[in-house]
Amino acid sequence: MGGENRGWVLVARPTGDNFDEVLKLRDLPMPEPGPGQILVRSLYLSLDPANRGWMMMPTYIPAVPLDGPMWGFVLGRVERSNDPAYGPGDLVSGFGSWSEYCVLNSDMTNKLPDLGGLPLHAAQSLFGLSGGTAYVGVLDIAKAKAGETLVVSGAAGSVGSLVGQIAKIQGCRVIGIAGSPEKCAWLTDELGFDHAIDYQREDVGQRLTELCPNGIDIYFENVGGSLGNTIISHIALRGRVVLCGFMAKFKAQGPDVDLGPVLLNRATIQGFIMVDHLHRLPEANADLARWFAEGRIKHHADIVDGIENTVAAFHKLFTPGAPHMGKLLVRMDPSAN
Amino acid sequence: MGGENRGWVLVARPTGDNFDEVLKLRDLPMPEPGPGQILVRSLYLSLDPANRGWMMMPTYIPAVPLDGPMWGFVLGRVERSNDPAYGPGDLVSGFGSWSEYCVLNSDMTNKLPDLGGLPLHAAQSLFGLSGGTAYVGVLDIAKAKAGETLVVSGAAGSVGSLVGQIAKIQGCRVIGIAGSPEKCAWLTDELGFDHAIDYQREDVGQRLTELCPNGIDIYFENVGGSLGNTIISHIALRGRVVLCGFMAKFKAQGPDVDLGPVLLNRATIQGFIMVDHLHRLPEANADLARWFAEGRIKHHADIVDGIENTVAAFHKLFTPGAPHMGKLLVRMDPSAN
Repeated sequence: MGGENRGWVLVARPTGDNFDEVLKLRDLPMPEPGPGQILVRSLYLSLDPANRGWMMMPTYIPAVPLDGPMWGFVLGRVERSNDPAYGPGDLVSGFGSWSEYCVLNSDMTNKLPDLGGLPLHAAQSLFGLSGGTAYVGVLDIAKAKAGETLVVSGAAGSVGSLVGQIAKIQGCRVIGIAGSPEKCAWLTDELGFDHAIDYQREDVGQRLTELCPNGIDIYFENVGGSLGNTIISHIALRGRVVLCGFMAKFKAQGPDVDLGPVLLNRATIQGFIMVDHLHRLPEANADLARWFAEGRIKHHADIVDGIENTVAAFHKLFTPGAPHMGKLLVRMDPSAN
Repeated sequence: MGGENRGWVLVARPTGDNFDEVLKLRDLPMPEPGPGQILVRSLYLSLDPANRGWMMMPTYIPAVPLDGPMWGFVLGRVERSNDPAYGPGDLVSGFGSWSEYCVLNSDMTNKLPDLGGLPLHAAQSLFGLSGGTAYVGVLDIAKAKAGETLVVSGAAGSVGSLVGQIAKIQGCRVIGIAGSPEKCAWLTDELGFDHAIDYQREDVGQRLTELCPNGIDIYFENVGGSLGNTIISHIALRGRVVLCGFMAKFKAQGPDVDLGPVLLNRATIQGFIMVDHLHRLPEANADLARWFAEGRIKHHADIVDGIENTVAAFHKLFTPGAPHMGKLLVRMDPSAN
């Protein structure tokens, strides 16, 4: 097959935030789908905090191989398929790479749900892995109940912003932790969070003492590090910590949490990765669509145009004051809606 | 009522191991049972690592008041009772104090189970809170299954030694962590643990890498601190950490655990205090008695005679090489069997 392809190649493991040094945009050969595989033209590339871990080391998947394309979740249109379940023109999401064309394995690929008139990017900003992670984390892992107090860090991010709204729908009191006054205002004024704490400008421990005199029933952990520890130290009797991510952790490796309050409060900390719960996606998507139609949940995509701007955009995930809310996407094809 | 009473009074909060400075043996008034209370003459006093936390600060109970008797679990004989369920001469266990006579509240008091010819101290070395903690922790919290690998720290202690044996009965492979060659030999040679690691003389991380190449399915945490963190870093996929105690933690406050491996392995950490599970004691006692009768479980009491030796004995719990195995008890009455 003819045509050209470009993509970001990982040339070294990052140390800190030096993504510009370790990722290079290069011309790549057009990939050739093997048996059962699907060749996709990427329309949107999802940028996620987890990508950083994949660059650095083996996590729940192997480390991204050096001198190969950087891995990522993509939303694209099928060009050619060696899987009879998919045909040219189908819109799919899957585990691909930061490149214009990529090959997907059908076992990690899904046709898009019915978007009900929503723009295409809603498949990543409302449905899919971000919405699914928030849904499963709040309902299945935390088992949130009406009247409970839920705190979420990384609250203005793709998962955090949905976590808080889903918890509100369950009847929880919700407090979001984010890194700028703009993000905090968005959480309370637009998304209906009860409170927001700006961890860059406020004393989080003191604010939690004021806001949660009886402790935090559920903490949805997206950041780790000393901020996570401060929040966990406010856990309530029989509280639950949903360990979902560590956006702050890669800068500060090593012990970070004091388990004393966890024992004394008979609390539970549970590690949680959405790939174990993909069977819940259809139900999650259906509920999210219904809540959206009822005006009970909002989603927001922060869309950056052009593959060449991918790494500059990726930095925003790890820059507390960066003007970024919701799901960070690179629009690979300017004609995508 | 006439007669004399002596007991240990807490005169200051301990810092480190200065128990000799903060506990003083004094003549005390004979306590007077109020409505519903029971006056007991103590036969055995249970010394437990948790006592240290009670001296220092509020935990799951308030801090022990200064200038009052030190609190502890006692096994005694009823002298007088204002609760019709108990009469003079009854043998009971309950939450009392480090004194010759104490008053028990009936809601925290139990008549001793049928000891089936076992010596009286078995009510604390096999049954009661130690056996119950091990039983509930292994069966209800960890949900140990045959073929799983369980690691227990504080393995030669009253709870740890029973945890390993109960896990063996469930069909687990069991590795104990203890602080002397004598304790390690006791675990493997007497109690049937598969392996023991001397954390004072061996590289625990390296030994766990050798012994648990697929990780630890269940870690029963009795110590905390950096030793606990080392062990948790070896947790297996979907492993469970039962947080039961922190014998090593009071010396080193602050963050101690890296939650990275917990997230990546989708593991669970659950704080657990036996007082929430007292309804399980009858079943625990019945199973422990049966296992003992079948020769499948052993218990050991380290008995120190005389109330005046209480504090010297208590030091053994926090001295890794101290010659102490099993349940540490003070025999308050030399005639008790």
